[in-house]
Amino acid sequence: MFDAGKYIESYRKELYESVLPFWIEHSLDHEYGGYFNCLDADGTVYDTTKHMWLQCRQVWMLSRLYNALEKNPAWLEAARLGLDFIRRCGRTPEGRVYFSLTREGRPLFIQRKIFAECFYIAALDEYARASGDQSLKDEARRLFEQVLAWRADPAILGRPVLEGQPATSTMSEPMMLLWVADQLSGGGIHHPQSPLMQSCVAEILLHARAERKLVLENVAPDGAPLPGSLGRLMNPGHAIEAGWFVLEHLRGTGERKAAAAAISMIDWSFDRGWDPEYGGIFYFMDSEGLPPFQLEWTMKLWWPHCEALIGLMLAYRETGEPHYLEKFERVSEYAFTHFSDPRHGEWFGYLDRQGRLTHTLKGGPYKGFFHLPRMLMMCLKLLEELA
Amino acid sequence: MFDAGKYIESYRKELYESVLPFWIEHSLDHEYGGYFNCLDADGTVYDTTKHMWLQCRQVWMLSRLYNALEKNPAWLEAARLGLDFIRRCGRTPEGRVYFSLTREGRPLFIQRKIFAECFYIAALDEYARASGDQSLKDEARRLFEQVLAWRADPAILGRPVLEGQPATSTMSEPMMLLWVADQLSGGGIHHPQSPLMQSCVAEILLHARAERKLVLENVAPDGAPLPGSLGRLMNPGHAIEAGWFVLEHLRGTGERKAAAAAISMIDWSFDRGWDPEYGGIFYFMDSEGLPPFQLEWTMKLWWPHCEALIGLMLAYRETGEPHYLEKFERVSEYAFTHFSDPRHGEWFGYLDRQGRLTHTLKGGPYKGFFHLPRMLMMCLKLLEELA
Repeated sequence: MFDAGKYIESYRKELYESVLPFWIEHSLDHEYGGYFNCLDADGTVYDTTKHMWLQCRQVWMLSRLYNALEKNPAWLEAARLGLDFIRRCGRTPEGRVYFSLTREGRPLFIQRKIFAECFYIAALDEYARASGDQSLKDEARRLFEQVLAWRADPAILGRPVLEGQPATSTMSEPMMLLWVADQLSGGGIHHPQSPLMQSCVAEILLHARAERKLVLENVAPDGAPLPGSLGRLMNPGHAIEAGWFVLEHLRGTGERKAAAAAISMIDWSFDRGWDPEYGGIFYFMDSEGLPPFQLEWTMKLWWPHCEALIGLMLAYRETGEPHYLEKFERVSEYAFTHFSDPRHGEWFGYLDRQGRLTHTLKGGPYKGFFHLPRMLMMCLKLLEELA
Repeated sequence: MFDAGKYIESYRKELYESVLPFWIEHSLDHEYGGYFNCLDADGTVYDTTKHMWLQCRQVWMLSRLYNALEKNPAWLEAARLGLDFIRRCGRTPEGRVYFSLTREGRPLFIQRKIFAECFYIAALDEYARASGDQSLKDEARRLFEQVLAWRADPAILGRPVLEGQPATSTMSEPMMLLWVADQLSGGGIHHPQSPLMQSCVAEILLHARAERKLVLENVAPDGAPLPGSLGRLMNPGHAIEAGWFVLEHLRGTGERKAAAAAISMIDWSFDRGWDPEYGGIFYFMDSEGLPPFQLEWTMKLWWPHCEALIGLMLAYRETGEPHYLEKFERVSEYAFTHFSDPRHGEWFGYLDRQGRLTHTLKGGPYKGFFHLPRMLMMCLKLLEELA
């Protein structure tokens, strides 16, 4: 029998006694504002670069915890520290959002992509909900309109479309836009099931290949397969995350067909992604077993495991099928055994295929206060519904 | 006793019976010109993208083998297949060089860096020497002047300098410019020890930190250390390659001090880079043992081992110290045991820290006909001097 109470206890303990204290204690930069992102195992800052994805995600996550779990003023204050920093230093003269800044907030790098902007929007919107500051919602909404324009013409981002490039739907774009649109709709400006949301859901589901029971990262805009390694690439954790974004988005709409398709994305990606030999979920795979370009494809990262735990729990809520709970237990066991650090708190992020730690870091350019606390928060709520 | 004859035999066999046949048989695209870059273990093409670094390097390498080893018309013909392709399809309307093209030669991607241009220049110049076509040398020389201008103002490449970026000397730039300047000087347009070459040598040597016996990838333009992970990054194979570029460049000039500094770069990088536990050379390291940003830092790649074999052999030629031959034997044993594929020919490229194969590929976006045949060609010559 699945013991929800046992998981509630350990997930709550992980969130409140391990993850939150680690970041509250070590990441806040009270001198220059914002957060230290690069934290070693014991919380030591090993690099002071401020990565905007992570600055924005931490503002969002702290605000979301405040809004959803507990009106803890320390969380709101910590969110404010990041919010003020990203608003003061985060945007270019043209209104784009930098990728990274120095500790003091001077610009270091800008990507030719829209993701920093999307996290910035979500941060402002969620903090606005926590603080009641309506002007932040307006800034977020205006930037989202710009993001949609930039997506339509990436030459504005310095990324002109070259004529040999096949027209491509990359999973990350509809995922991200759906996530942001859902975020903003909570504030009322996008009504549920707006045309944008519907097109994002449809585009995400195009990546699922029912005939082969797998999900591809990149397909043609009509869903046709693309040639070469790009067209064969799978990122199981990402596809599971996309699946649960769709499931959550559809919750309560009664759209059974799309929900079933989203659950299939979770099923197929988990079955393909789980390493039968050493356990854990592969980072990247080639759908035909050819060599992936990514050198790190065999590694086990913390975040696909977080996304799988959420996806499996949501699939169970939708279907009641007990195999989802069995898989949840398997992933939870792997993750808590391999990633969790009872000594200093928080999770490690990077293991080799065999499950050995390759990096001692708790925070780095792509690992911040986001996937893990979001998973713990969501799974806690879902487990409490079961208990 | 070091048995040079044994190595001459095995290195010659590897070049003539394993590496050359693999690429001549599997990489030539007789339909569209140029080369297939992405070849699986048995030579199967798993992606038809044409990566310009590798197209250009293969033209250079085939021409160099023709010029230096043997006037084999099949090698010159294969070089011509790539040369015609890169000249027909490789340059942008503004004269830059693309990063990747479709099989047919339509543009896919352009980097905000000067390296594709540098390999293009070297390809034209070496092929010109093989074919006697002087006009190619003129095109190469004109493009090199442009590259120097772009390096001075990277905003032209779409990479404006943001105000928080510390002024940085990145090892790859002076290395690459010295390599290209040396290449062109063979044709007589840059006399040996031009001011450009002297400044490249000085800039490379700035990266060596005698007080800590290590070489850093990134330093301030005056050689001062840079803060953070960027400033602590080491790439031992790259530093060894830079060391032997300088040694080769100085050959015959009698500049003992710079040569000794270059040998120290090889010594320190080999000693730091060799994995005492599992053997092989780490890909990346943090000079203070903090977590590197690169997920793949513990992996063992074929090319640092190739560069180490060249560097150790050149250091032995300069010094006559027998420990270089012992290290050469150690690296050679590791590389031939782990990378060489007697079944289908050519070397595998990517191992995990423990030495297990992670990728079955022989060719990929960054692995072509370059590091391995260059090493075999150079070591053969150096071994023959010893025999």
